[in-house]
Formats: sequence, C-alpha cells, structure tokens
Amino acid sequence: MKHRHVIDLEDLTFMQLQHTIELAGKIKNDPEKYAHVCDGKIMATLFYEPSTRTQMSFQTAMMRLGGKVIGFDNPQNSSVAKGESLKDTITVMSGYADIIAMRNPVEGSAKAASLYSSVPVINAGDGGHLHPTQTLTDVVTLYNEKGRLNHLKIGLCGDLKNGRTVHSLVKTMSHFEGNSFVLISTKELKIPDYIKDIMDRSGCKYTEVFDLKENISDLDVLYMTRIQRERFNSEEEYQAQKGTYILDLEKLKYAKDNMIILHPLPRVDEIAVEVDDDPRACYFKQAVYGMYGRMALILLLLEDKDYFFHTKSGKLTTHSVCSNDRCVVNQEHYLPRYYYKKNGKKICEYCDHEIRNS
Amino acid sequence: MKHRHVIDLEDLTFMQLQHTIELAGKIKNDPEKYAHVCDGKIMATLFYEPSTRTQMSFQTAMMRLGGKVIGFDNPQNSSVAKGESLKDTITVMSGYADIIAMRNPVEGSAKAASLYSSVPVINAGDGGHLHPTQTLTDVVTLYNEKGRLNHLKIGLCGDLKNGRTVHSLVKTMSHFEGNSFVLISTKELKIPDYIKDIMDRSGCKYTEVFDLKENISDLDVLYMTRIQRERFNSEEEYQAQKGTYILDLEKLKYAKDNMIILHPLPRVDEIAVEVDDDPRACYFKQAVYGMYGRMALILLLLEDKDYFFHTKSGKLTTHSVCSNDRCVVNQEHYLPRYYYKKNGKKICEYCDHEIRNS
Amino acid sequence: MKHRHVIDLEDLTFMQLQHTIELAGKIKNDPEKYAHVCDGKIMATLFYEPSTRTQMSFQTAMMRLGGKVIGFDNPQNSSVAKGESLKDTITVMSGYADIIAMRNPVEGSAKAASLYSSVPVINAGDGGHLHPTQTLTDVVTLYNEKGRLNHLKIGLCGDLKNGRTVHSLVKTMSHFEGNSFVLISTKELKIPDYIKDIMDRSGCKYTEVFDLKENISDLDVLYMTRIQRERFNSEEEYQAQKGTYILDLEKLKYAKDNMIILHPLPRVDEIAVEVDDDPRACYFKQAVYGMYGRMALILLLLEDKDYFFHTKSGKLTTHSVCSNDRCVVNQEHYLPRYYYKKNGKKICEYCDHEIRNS
Repeated sequence: MKHRHVIDLEDLTFMQLQHTIELAGKIKNDPEKYAHVCDGKIMATLFYEPSTRTQMSFQTAMMRLGGKVIGFDNPQNSSVAKGESLKDTITVMSGYADIIAMRNPVEGSAKAASLYSSVPVINAGDGGHLHPTQTLTDVVTLYNEKGRLNHLKIGLCGDLKNGRTVHSLVKTMSHFEGNSFVLISTKELKIPDYIKDIMDRSGCKYTEVFDLKENISDLDVLYMTRIQRERFNSEEEYQAQKGTYILDLEKLKYAKDNMIILHPLPRVDEIAVEVDDDPRACYFKQAVYGMYGRMALILLLLEDKDYFFHTKSGKLTTHSVCSNDRCVVNQEHYLPRYYYKKNGKKICEYCDHEIRNS
Repeated sequence: MKHRHVIDLEDLTFMQLQHTIELAGKIKNDPEKYAHVCDGKIMATLFYEPSTRTQMSFQTAMMRLGGKVIGFDNPQNSSVAKGESLKDTITVMSGYADIIAMRNPVEGSAKAASLYSSVPVINAGDGGHLHPTQTLTDVVTLYNEKGRLNHLKIGLCGDLKNGRTVHSLVKTMSHFEGNSFVLISTKELKIPDYIKDIMDRSGCKYTEVFDLKENISDLDVLYMTRIQRERFNSEEEYQAQKGTYILDLEKLKYAKDNMIILHPLPRVDEIAVEVDDDPRACYFKQAVYGMYGRMALILLLLEDKDYFFHTKSGKLTTHSVCSNDRCVVNQEHYLPRYYYKKNGKKICEYCDHEIRNS
Repeated sequence: MKHRHVIDLEDLTFMQLQHTIELAGKIKNDPEKYAHVCDGKIMATLFYEPSTRTQMSFQTAMMRLGGKVIGFDNPQNSSVAKGESLKDTITVMSGYADIIAMRNPVEGSAKAASLYSSVPVINAGDGGHLHPTQTLTDVVTLYNEKGRLNHLKIGLCGDLKNGRTVHSLVKTMSHFEGNSFVLISTKELKIPDYIKDIMDRSGCKYTEVFDLKENISDLDVLYMTRIQRERFNSEEEYQAQKGTYILDLEKLKYAKDNMIILHPLPRVDEIAVEVDDDPRACYFKQAVYGMYGRMALILLLLEDKDYFFHTKSGKLTTHSVCSNDRCVVNQEHYLPRYYYKKNGKKICEYCDHEIRNS
C-alpha cells in the first residue's frame, strides 16, 4: 500500500507543489464547487500541544470541503497522550479517521506517525522541526497576491536564526527562478549557514542587512517575524534596537506601492496596528489563504490517490543514535532507525539532525 | 459594508425582536423545514471563559439548522487567548467562519469584536455586562407558554441587585404594554435605581416586597434566581432568610394554576427538586426554547441581509478614559474610544459605564 | 413513554445482543448504506472524566452514520460539572441532543442519568462499575474474527481481580453455549467469586492457572490485560513475575495459528511491540470493531423504537442506604432508592452493591 503523507513540503515535487497552489486558488474562486467533495470523510486533528489557530484552520478547511472533524487539543486531559505509544495512538486513530493532521512538540514525530498510519498524515508542526502547511500558506498567498512565485525580491525581517517559518520559506522559494532575498536582522539573529548554502546552490542572490527602513524600498514582499525580547544580548540592546525591527507607517512610506506584507501570526508588536489598514497589509488575508491551501492539500491527499506518495528513502541503522535529545527516536524506542547521507554525514530521517555511532 | 451583530438585545427594534420570537416558534413547530437552511455555513464559538451550557446551546442551534461548528472553550490552552489582541483573533476567525458567537469575561468585548469582524457577531456574554441570548430565551419562553408578552404580572425573586439576567429581562419586557413587576428580595439585594427608572419611564407598575409566599398568588410568571450565601449580611441573616427565597411545593399551593416558573439555570437549591414535576415548572423547557431562540437569531443574521444592522451611534473621544477597570478599552489599547451621552453624562459605548476626562 | 437505554450490556436480551452484533458486521461490510441513516441527529458525548479514545470512537460512530456531535470532555472547565445536579444537566442536555453517551467516574451514574433523560442514554463507563460498549467491542470482534460466539476456549490473562472489562466479558460469553475459560493470573489477582458463580451457573468450564506460556497452546482467544506494578505484593515479586504475564513472540510460538489476541487498549508493555505484526494480533482491529459496534447500538436506539427498552425492575426503599461510598445515590440525594433482591440480599439498582438499613 502506498502511504501518502505531507511531513515536509519538500516531499512534494515541484509539479505537485505548483498543482496544490493552483488548486487552492481554484477553490478560493469557486468554493461552492468544492463544498461536498469530502462528504462522509472524517479528519482527526491530533494536537499534542495546543495551537488553536492552526487547528481551527484545519477544521474549517475540512468542513468547507463537506467533511467532519474529530480530535483533541488538550494533552493533559488526553488519555491517548498519557502512557500510550505514538504508534498505538496513530494505529487506532487511523482506523477511525480518513486523514490525520497532527501537531506534536516532539521533533520527527510526524514522520514517525506516518510509518504506522493507514491514512494520510499531514504534519501540522513537529516541534521546532517542520510546519509545511505554514509554508504552503505563505506561497499560496504570494502566488495569489503577486501573480507569480519567481523573480520576487523578498525581504525577511526579525529573528532569522530561530524562525522555522523563515527557513522553510527560503528553501521553498529557492526552487523558483530569479528570486532574491534581503535578510534583515541583528548580528546575533542572522540566518543559519545551511540556509545560505541552499540559496547559494540554487543561485538565489541574497544580502544580509541590519536596518529595515533603509532596505525596504525595492522589496516586492516583506515577511515580518517577531524577535523575542530574550533574544537580544541585553536589555540595553533591546531598547536600542527594537524599533529598527518594528514596521510602522513611517517606514512604509519608503516601500513600493505594490509591496505586500506577510506575517505568520500571531503578531505581538512587530507590526504597528496602524499598518493594518494599509492596502499592502496582507497578513490577515494570508490566514484565509492558509485555509484554502489546506483545503487543496486535504483534497489531493484524499482524492487523487496516486498523486502524492512519500518514500522512505532512508536506510536502516542499528548501531547509532540520533544526537538530538528532542527527536522522537529518543522517546519512542520501538521506532526503526532510518538515516540518509548528506555531505558524508549520516542524518536522522525523522528530525534531520546528525546521528552518531553508539 | 453593513455590520450586523447582536451585542445587546436593545440593538433589535421592537419589530425585529417580535419577528425573532415568532420565527423561534415557527422553527419549534416545524424543525424539518429549517434543517438545512444553514448547510455549508460554519459558526465559530469563541469562549474565552467556559460556559458549557451556553456553548452547547449555540452549537446545537447551528447544527439543527444544518451548519457546522468550530471553536474553543479552554482559555488557558488557547493560543489565541495568549498574547494576541482581540482584534487580531477576531479578524482571523471571521475569515474562517460565517458567524461568531463569543463569550468573554471582559466587559464591552463583544462590541469591540464587532468592530473588526467581517461576519456577524453574537454576544454570548461579556462579563457582567450583557447576555442578550439569555434574555431572548426568556421572552421566547414567555411568548410560547403564555401566548403573549404584554399584560403579564411578573414576579422576580432572589438577588435582584447583581442579576444581569433580571435587569435585562425587565428592560425588554418594559417595551410591551401593561406588564407589571413584583420585585421579591432582601433589603440589601433590591433592584438598582436605573432599572426602576426604566420601569417608571415606560409606565410599568412595580412593587418591592420581601416575602415570596405572601406575594405569589396573583403572579402570571415567577422568575427565580439564586441568592449566593455571601450576599447576605451575616450567617445569621442567611439562616433566617434563606427559606423565604426557596420555592417549594408548599409555597406553590398559593400560586395560580397557570403561573409559569422560569429560572436561567443552573439552579442550586433555590427551587426544590420536588417542584420539577409540577406542570408550572418551565425552567427545563426554557433551555429548549433558548435553543430555538438562538436558531432564529442565527438564521436571521445569516440570511436576511438587511434585517439587522448595528449602528455605531457613538462619537469618538480622545481625551477621556472609561472609569470601568473591567472595560475592554482599558485592556485593548488600540480601540477607538466611542461614547454616547445620557443625562448629560458621557457613557462608554463598550461597557455603558461613565467615562471621565483624562 | 418507554425509555430505551444501554446501561449494562445485560439490559439487552440474548436476541437483541445477537442482532446488534450482526448489524455491526453489516455496517462494516457496506458502510455507504448506513452513511446517512442518522442525518440531522445529534449525539451529546458527556465525558465527566477524559477518555479520549472512547469519546472519539463514539464521535466517529455517530459521524459515520451521518449524525453530528456536541459534548464536553473537560470536567474542570465544565460549568455543567460544577454545582449542578446530574439530573439538571441530563434534563437540559436531553432537550438539546437526540442521544447521549455519558462517561462519569461515579458508580451508578449512568442508571441515574437514564431516569431523567428524554432520549436514549448509552453508558460509556460509570467508574469501576460498567462499560458495556467495551464488552460489545469484544464480542463484535470475536464474532467477526472467529465466526462464532460459542464453543470457544478463551484465555484471560493479567489482573483478573480488578478488571471490569474481564468480568463483563465473562458474564456475556457465559450466555453462549460451550465456551470455556482459562484464567491466567497471580494468586493475588484471581477472578472474584461472583464471576466464578456466573460461570458455574451457566455450566461454563474454567481453570485457574499461573503461567501464560504453559497454558497458551489450546486457546482460541487470548484476552490480555495489564497488571499494574502496584498490584504485586512487593517489588521483588513484581520483578520475578512480570515476565510471566507479558506476551511476546517467544510465547506465541506455542499458540495455535488461528488464535486471536485481544486487548482493550491502551497497552503499556504487557504485549511486546514485536507481536503487532503477527497475524494473530487483533487488538488494533478490535478498536475498529468497537466503532462498528457503537454504530449498530446508536442506530438501533435511534431507529428501532421498540427494540430496546430498559425496565426499572427495582422496588423503592426509603429506609436504607447504599453501602458503596462511590455510588451515585450517596452524592445525588434526590435520587429514588431502587433496589432488587439477590440471594436474599437487597442490592442497589444503581451500582449493584449491597444496601443496608439505615
């Protein structure tokens, strides 16, 4: 049996991604046509940590296709979250539901779940590791608002070091021709080297800069993220620098009229409320595009049986352990140890950290 | 775009209220006819504080119209409840859902939500301020059980000082001709003066009395509420007086055969269990009428596009603050400060407390 | 009005049980045919203690029949769980929903709920007392996997003293001809005498043994349950004996090829993960059969109006109290005190413990 899952957005070929994005647009333009395509189907939203917005986006997506939803969001109260292995929970739940959207703080848990599920699994976030439907949300928004996914000058502003969202977006947009990136952050919060490698390999140009206002003028897209107070070196630096990374109407004066502003939400204060009424503000629309993106993904996974399939490309190892304490293989000990090779190193197939011999 | 919301039952004109009540009755008599009128529609029940009964009443109402429901009821676990402004949550949620029912402990929050929602908002309780669908429940019950909303002698018993439910019911019933009120409570828990003003202005007669049994005999309706132990002046007074405000079969002997007994539920011990089997007990039926009332409201808000509309009648102020610490404008600082004038005073449009110059 | 409820699986006649089991099989074989039989119906899942798996099984069952679901699973947050009597909650909820599935830690609470519900109540577990849909799950699995419910040699392994599941299964399977039991446990955790009495009266043979491996060879069915560490007399005994009651591939070598392994789930380590891929492992399928069993039960209760009915066979007593502290009559004082007689003793109709004169 073919297992079709979306653990990483990279599981989709370029053609599949393109198709998903286009389908999202079609659904947006004619929702009536898709209002019953999942009649009689059930989605289980298994949220081992609460994420109300993501869960409601999945729920709404399924319901707007005609489907129904079961699930939990309350790990403390959940008997499945206590004592039972992920394998057992997923095996049983995939006997109840037709598709699973799982969020779990354990890195690699989505991949682990996919090994035991008899129905498609969508990764709705596995700790700090991957969150493919957030990235899908971003590209669906870009495609619909800019009309293309190539030849865009994309500014990324805020905490570029720790932002899973930003890393994933760069990876995905690097596949499209002619995109370039302006990386706007403090010295301490610059983008990691492995993301630079990806841009280099794909031939995308990028610059690293420190000031938002000075670099906003020729951007097609500005992707804002939050810098948490504790990421600054000191309270003095925080007070001195925080304003630099807050988008307000003053800074927006220097931006192009057709630039669009994205943000994964929730925001705290990195975008001033006054910006909300500017026509370039797209972050609320973005949440709605996210719903359409998820609708497209669910539909393709449930309907188009041969469209997606996830191949276990890894090899099995028995004499090694993953170096990542937060990885699922260090918690669920029955899991087979899969790895792949990259730059001569063995990499854990679940969480993408290096493995070491034991 | 016209915003249609139900924040206060007073937002409805007399005609609209009449129409809603009659529609509730029609739905009750022919539920099949309405079983699919909201097919494909989604309601978000955003409960920032738990209220299982109210939430389930809204959910059932939406489902019995053919619709579906998303939502949360678990503020601690809810990411939307942490850190994110009400504006952002409502903006996103109104992109997912077709109608919102919100309960929130912050006074004025329903009004605030309505400013940013692209879909109708129903106030399912904003702290101690308003709870319009409870009052709708009461009047739908009265209309169906008594056949009229005018010329009724209505007894109100219990804590009349702190009871939002009671105040709202008096306000609404004062609009109908010939109603009179018998206000039964301790000296300390008498109805506030501003409610007496409303009765006076509308020409409704009322009397204030202290004993239930002595005043029950000519009532058409007896509306019971709870007096919390801590509302009494002392433990002695509590022990001495509590029995006076408990309805039992003994006191019911003195009531008319066609009097009906209402209670907003949950009850504790202010109505003895033995009363439940008396044909005059209507408080359980009342909960079912509440469901039909909510069905009518949802349907009118979703279908009859020009039927309801909520006008921001207030003026904008910049140099003043609301005197109510629990008011939403003192928590969500981006909100425009609307006020209206009453008896020469400036009143906060959100929570109806006086504002003071800052 | 006839009340139709399933509080105890013993409420069903032999014919009704047979019919339910067969209907579960029919639904499994042709789910499309049953996909809309409960369109427009609402189930309330009232879970006073969390049991995610059971709740999701009920939810899925209802949805796969076309119905919708409301409910709670969060007793701390639930206003209905605070302060309000069970009677009031059930009375109101049965005004909203068409059928109720209730789980409640208080023994006898399902029976109590059935007295006040205007719609069918299914007991989804009332403390340590009864859990009829678990037993239904077991017999649906047996019937579908073994092709019969009689002439089976059934091994029961683990904690046979405290296991509600095991007691109920023995009771039910004793009704069918020619079944025999092999009771495998420690000396301290042997099956209670009243269960032995049931087997004796129905003419079922049974043996009590201590070792799983030595007794596995001629079993048709092996029903595994967990022994909690704290049930052993001492840590030494635990270390010495625990392996005896863990099923692994080594022990399975001695079993018949067509033996099936059941487990109520969740398991901890009483079945080794390596067993999961053995074709005799039926415990995950069992969860799916549970869903079909619940679908059959819901359908029969909602559709076949005269099929089930629960008779209050008890007599009313006023001068006695139930000896069980955990019984619902000791918490909800308005409940009528019903009892029946057994072996000359008066037994509480709610929780099946003896009552004593007060």
